[in-house]
Amino acid sequence: MTPDQLRSLLEEVRAGAVDVESAMGRMRHLPFEDLGFAKIDHHRALRHGMPEVVFAQRKTPEQVIAITRQLLENSPNVLITRADRDCATAVCQQLVGGEYFPMSGAIRFWRDRVPKGRGFIAVLCAGTSDIAVAEEAQVTAEVMGNEVTPIHDVGVAGFHRLMHYRERLTEARVIVVCAGMEGALPSAVGGMVSCPVIAVPTSVGYGASFHGLAALLGMLNSCASNVTVVNIDNGFGAGYVASLINRP
Amino acid sequence: MTPDQLRSLLEEVRAGAVDVESAMGRMRHLPFEDLGFAKIDHHRALRHGMPEVVFAQRKTPEQVIAITRQLLENSPNVLITRADRDCATAVCQQLVGGEYFPMSGAIRFWRDRVPKGRGFIAVLCAGTSDIAVAEEAQVTAEVMGNEVTPIHDVGVAGFHRLMHYRERLTEARVIVVCAGMEGALPSAVGGMVSCPVIAVPTSVGYGASFHGLAALLGMLNSCASNVTVVNIDNGFGAGYVASLINRP
Amino acid sequence: MTPDQLRSLLEEVRAGAVDVESAMGRMRHLPFEDLGFAKIDHHRALRHGMPEVVFAQRKTPEQVIAITRQLLENSPNVLITRADRDCATAVCQQLVGGEYFPMSGAIRFWRDRVPKGRGFIAVLCAGTSDIAVAEEAQVTAEVMGNEVTPIHDVGVAGFHRLMHYRERLTEARVIVVCAGMEGALPSAVGGMVSCPVIAVPTSVGYGASFHGLAALLGMLNSCASNVTVVNIDNGFGAGYVASLINRP
Amino acid sequence: MTPDQLRSLLEEVRAGAVDVESAMGRMRHLPFEDLGFAKIDHHRALRHGMPEVVFAQRKTPEQVIAITRQLLENSPNVLITRADRDCATAVCQQLVGGEYFPMSGAIRFWRDRVPKGRGFIAVLCAGTSDIAVAEEAQVTAEVMGNEVTPIHDVGVAGFHRLMHYRERLTEARVIVVCAGMEGALPSAVGGMVSCPVIAVPTSVGYGASFHGLAALLGMLNSCASNVTVVNIDNGFGAGYVASLINRP
Amino acid sequence: MTPDQLRSLLEEVRAGAVDVESAMGRMRHLPFEDLGFAKIDHHRALRHGMPEVVFAQRKTPEQVIAITRQLLENSPNVLITRADRDCATAVCQQLVGGEYFPMSGAIRFWRDRVPKGRGFIAVLCAGTSDIAVAEEAQVTAEVMGNEVTPIHDVGVAGFHRLMHYRERLTEARVIVVCAGMEGALPSAVGGMVSCPVIAVPTSVGYGASFHGLAALLGMLNSCASNVTVVNIDNGFGAGYVASLINRP
Amino acid sequence: MTPDQLRSLLEEVRAGAVDVESAMGRMRHLPFEDLGFAKIDHHRALRHGMPEVVFAQRKTPEQVIAITRQLLENSPNVLITRADRDCATAVCQQLVGGEYFPMSGAIRFWRDRVPKGRGFIAVLCAGTSDIAVAEEAQVTAEVMGNEVTPIHDVGVAGFHRLMHYRERLTEARVIVVCAGMEGALPSAVGGMVSCPVIAVPTSVGYGASFHGLAALLGMLNSCASNVTVVNIDNGFGAGYVASLINRP
Amino acid sequence: MTPDQLRSLLEEVRAGAVDVESAMGRMRHLPFEDLGFAKIDHHRALRHGMPEVVFAQRKTPEQVIAITRQLLENSPNVLITRADRDCATAVCQQLVGGEYFPMSGAIRFWRDRVPKGRGFIAVLCAGTSDIAVAEEAQVTAEVMGNEVTPIHDVGVAGFHRLMHYRERLTEARVIVVCAGMEGALPSAVGGMVSCPVIAVPTSVGYGASFHGLAALLGMLNSCASNVTVVNIDNGFGAGYVASLINRP
Amino acid sequence: MTPDQLRSLLEEVRAGAVDVESAMGRMRHLPFEDLGFAKIDHHRALRHGMPEVVFAQRKTPEQVIAITRQLLENSPNVLITRADRDCATAVCQQLVGGEYFPMSGAIRFWRDRVPKGRGFIAVLCAGTSDIAVAEEAQVTAEVMGNEVTPIHDVGVAGFHRLMHYRERLTEARVIVVCAGMEGALPSAVGGMVSCPVIAVPTSVGYGASFHGLAALLGMLNSCASNVTVVNIDNGFGAGYVASLINRP
Repeated sequence: MTPDQLRSLLEEVRAGAVDVESAMGRMRHLPFEDLGFAKIDHHRALRHGMPEVVFAQRKTPEQVIAITRQLLENSPNVLITRADRDCATAVCQQLVGGEYFPMSGAIRFWRDRVPKGRGFIAVLCAGTSDIAVAEEAQVTAEVMGNEVTPIHDVGVAGFHRLMHYRERLTEARVIVVCAGMEGALPSAVGGMVSCPVIAVPTSVGYGASFHGLAALLGMLNSCASNVTVVNIDNGFGAGYVASLINRP
Repeated sequence: MTPDQLRSLLEEVRAGAVDVESAMGRMRHLPFEDLGFAKIDHHRALRHGMPEVVFAQRKTPEQVIAITRQLLENSPNVLITRADRDCATAVCQQLVGGEYFPMSGAIRFWRDRVPKGRGFIAVLCAGTSDIAVAEEAQVTAEVMGNEVTPIHDVGVAGFHRLMHYRERLTEARVIVVCAGMEGALPSAVGGMVSCPVIAVPTSVGYGASFHGLAALLGMLNSCASNVTVVNIDNGFGAGYVASLINRP
Repeated sequence: MTPDQLRSLLEEVRAGAVDVESAMGRMRHLPFEDLGFAKIDHHRALRHGMPEVVFAQRKTPEQVIAITRQLLENSPNVLITRADRDCATAVCQQLVGGEYFPMSGAIRFWRDRVPKGRGFIAVLCAGTSDIAVAEEAQVTAEVMGNEVTPIHDVGVAGFHRLMHYRERLTEARVIVVCAGMEGALPSAVGGMVSCPVIAVPTSVGYGASFHGLAALLGMLNSCASNVTVVNIDNGFGAGYVASLINRP
Repeated sequence: MTPDQLRSLLEEVRAGAVDVESAMGRMRHLPFEDLGFAKIDHHRALRHGMPEVVFAQRKTPEQVIAITRQLLENSPNVLITRADRDCATAVCQQLVGGEYFPMSGAIRFWRDRVPKGRGFIAVLCAGTSDIAVAEEAQVTAEVMGNEVTPIHDVGVAGFHRLMHYRERLTEARVIVVCAGMEGALPSAVGGMVSCPVIAVPTSVGYGASFHGLAALLGMLNSCASNVTVVNIDNGFGAGYVASLINRP
Repeated sequence: MTPDQLRSLLEEVRAGAVDVESAMGRMRHLPFEDLGFAKIDHHRALRHGMPEVVFAQRKTPEQVIAITRQLLENSPNVLITRADRDCATAVCQQLVGGEYFPMSGAIRFWRDRVPKGRGFIAVLCAGTSDIAVAEEAQVTAEVMGNEVTPIHDVGVAGFHRLMHYRERLTEARVIVVCAGMEGALPSAVGGMVSCPVIAVPTSVGYGASFHGLAALLGMLNSCASNVTVVNIDNGFGAGYVASLINRP
Repeated sequence: MTPDQLRSLLEEVRAGAVDVESAMGRMRHLPFEDLGFAKIDHHRALRHGMPEVVFAQRKTPEQVIAITRQLLENSPNVLITRADRDCATAVCQQLVGGEYFPMSGAIRFWRDRVPKGRGFIAVLCAGTSDIAVAEEAQVTAEVMGNEVTPIHDVGVAGFHRLMHYRERLTEARVIVVCAGMEGALPSAVGGMVSCPVIAVPTSVGYGASFHGLAALLGMLNSCASNVTVVNIDNGFGAGYVASLINRP
Repeated sequence: MTPDQLRSLLEEVRAGAVDVESAMGRMRHLPFEDLGFAKIDHHRALRHGMPEVVFAQRKTPEQVIAITRQLLENSPNVLITRADRDCATAVCQQLVGGEYFPMSGAIRFWRDRVPKGRGFIAVLCAGTSDIAVAEEAQVTAEVMGNEVTPIHDVGVAGFHRLMHYRERLTEARVIVVCAGMEGALPSAVGGMVSCPVIAVPTSVGYGASFHGLAALLGMLNSCASNVTVVNIDNGFGAGYVASLINRP
Repeated sequence: MTPDQLRSLLEEVRAGAVDVESAMGRMRHLPFEDLGFAKIDHHRALRHGMPEVVFAQRKTPEQVIAITRQLLENSPNVLITRADRDCATAVCQQLVGGEYFPMSGAIRFWRDRVPKGRGFIAVLCAGTSDIAVAEEAQVTAEVMGNEVTPIHDVGVAGFHRLMHYRERLTEARVIVVCAGMEGALPSAVGGMVSCPVIAVPTSVGYGASFHGLAALLGMLNSCASNVTVVNIDNGFGAGYVASLINRP
């Protein structure tokens, strides 16, 4: 309920068009619906001006389909993340317009493709094993109306590869950097550019990488001041925030 | 060395105005100077369009003064972080125009006060003990040309206090949220607004807070998609990135 | 052996009705039986006035059935937790009256349904993925004679959903809150109400949630004073303690 | 703002006694005051029916005194926790009626001593080094209107000491158990009684106690179902929740 | 090579019966043989007066059989630990006299059954899920010539069960105590008896048990002075050391 | 209360010499006294046949003296551990016969010096920095009636030093090994001898030793089967258990 | 681009043979090619004088084959690590000359077998379970032109086995030591020899080995000064660095 | 005792010049002396061809002086590490020729300055706060006969600074890299050069650097294959191994 809606309601109360108990009822009524297993919050799309997102992990295909169908009635764009192949098959059979990205498990309904950003977003990954996470970031940023430049396999031990893209990087509005192992790439990129860098630690690695912990700690301790961090493997979150930053 | 500078240089080589060895020498010459104990990088200020920053911890007052004096010759604004009282006293005696913030240990030389941001930055803290970190974020964002709205003591267990500021928060371009203990405030704020939220875990707490680890993990696992995280107590980093996001 | 039983025994000794060695033997005899693989303790039900509980994990269906059959002879209500589908099928075929809850793996024998509580218990969960843990808490509290109000999917990033239930929550005698990821919901609920809140971290999440550790630490560091915590995914324990608190 | 207050306000709007903008203003006005460094929330005392509490750590004596003076105007009972000796001296000089407990650092203003509980609360500690934490729990529970039975130095390796108090323990409504090192006492007590047990890990120990982590993990994994846990050294929280449980 | 053997050798050198190079060769020759993938060390059995032990995990059935066959030529008793069912089937088919214990995965060749201990060893476990570890300890202690009294399911939350065995426990020469979850049993047992107690944390539990870490830390911090600890699930090590302690 | 005492009591009840209520009272009366801040348990000395021990850390000199004075009335030998210099000075002034060991902080009252062991105990340490912990083990074992052979500075990187003592080590009944850093010495010693080895990790080291954690984990994972472990820096516990093992 | 190449290029610019834009283009052109999913960097082989290496984990057999085929065109020797059996089968069918090592998962193309080292490299492992990691180190060192002496199953608890190889070890130029569990072997070896020792913690162990963490910490805290450490199970890295050290 | 010495001894036995018992005595006599608190091992200097090293931490100035004096009689060069100012003052007063380095706490006796290396060693540090650790590495490498090139303040976020030294780095035989915070510098350097890189994590940083743990994990997970790691702040170890690698 926005201030304007509240003002209208109070004016209706004042005018006697709405009685007190009804007004109280309406003020308590918030715009979400109940599907039994999940409250769908159309308000969120309004609040954030963003597509709705469904986190498919631990949900059955039936639940994912039901939620998505409901969302598609109000939102032109819907993003499903972390869907396995069975779920994706079911969703794409039942609902028209879904595009599946098997590496990252994303499914995208992208009906409103009007560009919304100020500039472009670069999405980097350090090694070929980090591509799945980078893909999730890219799919997210695109469905939110951004132009994305993906740059893969530019890890810090082959620094000249990264230097190759230096000029392109300095033109980006915001950069998402996905890296596992020691997680050093965001610091190197951060030192090169003056835009915000969103670091995504990935769980790629073995031994003392402790499933992404080493990369996470490395990124949190970055000596570059323009780096912030999201959760391990959270490509979606990085793409989402990058989109917010890129908005006019 | 920018592409344009390189092009000019190559043209001079072509024209015979510069010989090959000199060209090689110049191409190797990068714009930093050597004070013996620290390489000062004026290039960085150029690259980022940002004030220079001196991290005072583990440096002697003499080192801090020498570095700062050098920087002030090229940069209108200089920020010193983590200075103790002795260092601050020495700096403010030796160098004109320093402003000391004892809670956070920041010293600010703020000579260019032209506003540079699109909107304003809100800086929140959950409890009174988190103010030191919030102050560092605020001082940083201001010296980088931003209007800042500080909002203190709005922790999640007294949610109605936070609600009080709801409207102001929805108008911010970017929000910095400092919280120790369970670190829940960024999620609550993130759910309220549609702009990027930068979460700063603080080391406030005791017992199983493990010096900020609990807050850090909480923030990384935020269920709000618009939240990114910086290092524990890193108010400076949060203020810095918030400024980058707020730039036109 | 209660003080009264001891007194009676000593009086029989005094009267010569029981000789010394027999008395010593009886005093050593405590009311548990030996099934070979597990000592069943009917005394516990007496002591706690509570149904017997069987923890099925790592037990064979045969062991679960044997223990449960024995318990059902003395206790009207028996609760089995963490039973997989095979175990549940076997139990429900062999023993009359079992009710299986597949999400949480609980099996309930609920023969004495007399209400025993002072008020009602609210059981909340933050996301749809936390429902399994919430179900275990609900099933436990019900079999122990409590009215339960379940409220699902009210995570802190959509705070208005939680506000919707505010009035109902303030009427509860005790509230169980299940949340994974950052575990912020118990603090928000705790700040709203004045009754005890039992927080259950769930292992829902990924990356730096570290299988529930992030939620656990967040809950232990809650800034709300009325929050206590149980083990990760321990819906049973939360429902059990909530029942004790709700007893007259 | 309670539903009744809201209803009255809306009726005034309807009657024309209050105009729309004023109503919107009042609905936004929540009952807390701003001291500059901390928002005091009288609403909380109302909501919880509890004394106000000031956490003194990281606050100056002046801040503690200012907050406490403000609170004493509305609350008969105020509890200050974690005050060092300097702070305590200042508070007790400036404000009448403060009682200082040096082991735990609590200061208590206890003007309303009407008993409010159903039964009594037992507060146990395992070793003499845990007494400080137990004292904080006892002081808290008493100022909240409860009768408290303290039982000290009954660690699990001298189990017969604990058995000595068995009967008294079975009569308690709720038991707080403070223990460091291996943290085994809550399980042993929990197995003896049928009331809720609130376990407080203490940072007492050395080596692999890791400042209370060993005790914390032990208590979270308790095999007794009636145990919940609060943060390390959080005697206040345990006393607070115990009081809530003991309320009629 | 014992001092006596060395002395003999030197005397032969002195007498000219052995030349210098041969003596050097012999002094270098230590009593182990090489099977290619594992050096078998008959010396160890001599040194420790103990049966040979084969750790089957990560070895193929063929490797286990080859090593065991070799050992059986020199040692009357051989113990294989951590054998899965396939390995056990192969071993028992190929080698005569093997006895398989499926819960713990031990295989025992027990040809010399002469008792070697001073008293008996008690092996306790806290819950039925800890029996596998206790069995490994028992099998080990028996094959090393000890009388063992197993006592199962006497966890600390049902303390009266443990008390039932108090007298038997005070007669043991050494006690092995296996417990998961909070690992409190060794402290309770340690406080009851005056013999050494060897604590074995088990990986039984869930959530914050962290695969036995909680039990391990609890046992290391035991307030009973007569407790030492072995690795998580290391029933073999506990049975082995208990046997050494029980030797005359 | 021993079985014999119980039997006598019951016979008195039978004979009418003791009435029922008195018998119940006596059965409840356990042999400990209350000094207000600590329950002294003379029973423990009887149960374990061991000297009484006072843990001085976190106790005032006055408390230590009061407890020690009480204990000296019933026990010929008393050991105080972890006393700082102030405490030691006060104790040795007030109580006759105390011997202070400043490295480890032990104070020993050793009035009954009758040897009680079967053989001797060797106490090794890896480096000179580990001597304090070894001293605590030695002082403890001596006051409990054992002959002790201390062997210092025989770390595993200078293996020939350890080999020098090989023969002496093989004659010991039990060996205590104190080591910080990587904690490898117990494994090396354990492989050399056939008696039990008690490993004491020390907090000596820096960086990734994490205050003894590295040594602790190393010892728990020892590939020698005759090694058990006590808490970090717990020389007392090691000396105590070694004494129990050495008893006839 | 080497300084010489740069010099030539600049001279061509000077001579007018190359125009400015072409020069800029060439200077930007770095010697790597793009296969779409991975940038192949032939430059690296030149820079390091080393064979190319493909990390097969998380790559499809098709990707591994494509990358390897490309590399084999420029490098005589190629090493693939962490290939599972399916991948190995596909690679060896498609590409001539591959040799598969199933324990470690290495595939080796070894066409240039000219020895390149100063001396030989010894590769030790503590137990038979560590052989897989040692094999990876050996295969790597051999393909890089080194003579390797493998020594298996010489763990520190059977120290005389290690002593058997003492002379051979003192002749090595560099030693790789693979050990799990307590990770003590590198310290013992390091104390014996004067060459560099590269320690490889392995994930062999159980319980408190925490998948190699115990061994890793032990090795980092080695009391031998000639020990450095690589990641858990990183036999490849150890063999690689050993080869670099052994180069003339 | 070398094989040659053993051979001589045996030949003397054979010739009757040495009797059997004397030979046994001599074979047992290893070349270390006993100062009471520390065994000095002159053999080590012989074995490693290296200066003797004294670790001053936790030793009294008197102990350090006594050990050092003894060592100076046999070794031309002696290095003392981790000496505080008091210790250094005492050492330099009592012993001639000591040179104190206050940042790292090293004291160096450097009497034999003959160069012993094949090439030079580069010692890098990422920030000015890491210089203390780099100094320890440099002092160590120099006293062991190596030419050292120190390069300070070349962290990865200012990558062009590092590039400035690229040519010099490619000429080094071995490189030591000290870095705190995210520890990314070794990977960047490792990717630039083909010699071995020894990474030293430093405890420089705050918050989630966890006293060097973040840097340590980052370095262990380096994507550059030529990187090995030593303990946190272990500049000495890095300088020592670098010297071994640089030996002809």
